[in-house]
Amino acid sequence: MPQSANWFIEAHQASGSSVGYRVEERLHVEKTPFQTIEIYQTTDWGKLMVIDDCVMLTDRDNFLYHEMMTHPALFTHSGARRVVIIGGGDCGTLREVLRHGEVEQVTQVEIDERVTRLAERYFPELCQANDDPRAKLLFSDGIAYMAGLPEVSLDMVIVDSTDPAGPAAGLFNASFYASCYRALRHGGILVQQSESPIAHLELIGTMRSAMRSAGFSKVKTLPFPQPCYPTGWWSCTMASRGGDLALFREDDAKLRTFPTRYYNPGIHRGALALPQFMCEAWSE
Amino acid sequence: MPQSANWFIEAHQASGSSVGYRVEERLHVEKTPFQTIEIYQTTDWGKLMVIDDCVMLTDRDNFLYHEMMTHPALFTHSGARRVVIIGGGDCGTLREVLRHGEVEQVTQVEIDERVTRLAERYFPELCQANDDPRAKLLFSDGIAYMAGLPEVSLDMVIVDSTDPAGPAAGLFNASFYASCYRALRHGGILVQQSESPIAHLELIGTMRSAMRSAGFSKVKTLPFPQPCYPTGWWSCTMASRGGDLALFREDDAKLRTFPTRYYNPGIHRGALALPQFMCEAWSE
Repeated sequence: MPQSANWFIEAHQASGSSVGYRVEERLHVEKTPFQTIEIYQTTDWGKLMVIDDCVMLTDRDNFLYHEMMTHPALFTHSGARRVVIIGGGDCGTLREVLRHGEVEQVTQVEIDERVTRLAERYFPELCQANDDPRAKLLFSDGIAYMAGLPEVSLDMVIVDSTDPAGPAAGLFNASFYASCYRALRHGGILVQQSESPIAHLELIGTMRSAMRSAGFSKVKTLPFPQPCYPTGWWSCTMASRGGDLALFREDDAKLRTFPTRYYNPGIHRGALALPQFMCEAWSE
Repeated sequence: MPQSANWFIEAHQASGSSVGYRVEERLHVEKTPFQTIEIYQTTDWGKLMVIDDCVMLTDRDNFLYHEMMTHPALFTHSGARRVVIIGGGDCGTLREVLRHGEVEQVTQVEIDERVTRLAERYFPELCQANDDPRAKLLFSDGIAYMAGLPEVSLDMVIVDSTDPAGPAAGLFNASFYASCYRALRHGGILVQQSESPIAHLELIGTMRSAMRSAGFSKVKTLPFPQPCYPTGWWSCTMASRGGDLALFREDDAKLRTFPTRYYNPGIHRGALALPQFMCEAWSE
């Protein structure tokens, strides 16, 4: 792996490409029972969290990911009251979900409590909503948690995990999607981070098929820019139990009462339009 | 700069971030009167061209840039007959322009002939249209060329240059834009690569102001993914002499008779929707 004294570089072996940041110092390193977590101070991107040598987030660009993992799904649902986040330990997704007044309860199920404790220390702005009375933070296995939920008890499941390897491998298959489907009410939405459109097209296709096999009637993949991840281009995939995903509450999105930096109704509509190679891959 | 034996890594000092590729070998290196050009064979991205340590293109992802530098502008114009490309030595932009049947003549003005000669050798698919009888390849200074053109003689100027430093510095200012404006017919469009939305927002704002100062009545910046450039997120900016840029020939775009891999009407509409932070920066 290419490294030098003052750069942290993630060499993404699967795609033969790398993304890196100039760093001032490593502020923290820790081996947890699940993974190795590092925090760096960068020169231009604020703080940087790295897990098992993979960039997780920077202060400067995490708004892209967190907004796209939440607002499109929440403005598509007619009114999500109960939401579960699987993973999401940095709490940025949780913060965005809680901006929606219709949400009554969010349970975050992160396997590694240390991710959240370090986020509280090094990314405090992402953890601003952790004390919201609607938020419940659990530290346990998301696969077991979803399998144990009562049927038709949720409106949304957001899978904000690491790549499909290590602790997150079990979050990318039909058995996990079946648990999500079972737990969702009619009109419920599963939304999952789905890697890079250009580097992981086959994986995204496999996820989409597995979601359909689990019973989800509609599936939509929304690409968005994400500089800190391999190829700088990322996506989330939404799957619905019964509802449409091509339409959303545009007026509510336009009149939203909270700040966003990337999301707005035009961005939402734009993200629903797939690049030609993705249309052709999936006959959309 | 971080390097290692089998990775080429561009350390983008201005943004404190890097993008890199795993390489098998360097196929060519050459110092021209203008710059140093290198060609690498990568493991996963085909061939890679580097100029003065900056990544110019890879086989695998150049379609994003070349399609977005051409098709939105050409489908916005009511029927562009005479087109000038400033820079564009790899000829990928030229190839895309020539896919449009309404185009009668394209003059490409690249300052460094060696870029084109090396593209012909290492990126032959980008040079497929170089022998088109409508194409004219000049190797000279684009600034002087634009200043010397007759008034109101062109429909489109496409500025496909390197970053605003070195030979391309003079392509990012009001004096150059005034030459472009002068040479364009009513309804004519200038389109220019305009760097990264997240790393160069101020520069894009300056370009937009300078275009307006030069007389262009409408200006639109279209973001798109571009993995091989700093931050993986890039943009082009269109400026029109009199015409609207928010509308385009959607039916023609939909019924286009040539292949695209990124562009389609949905992508075009999506690219016209700015991220919220750009809307707020420019009150759009």
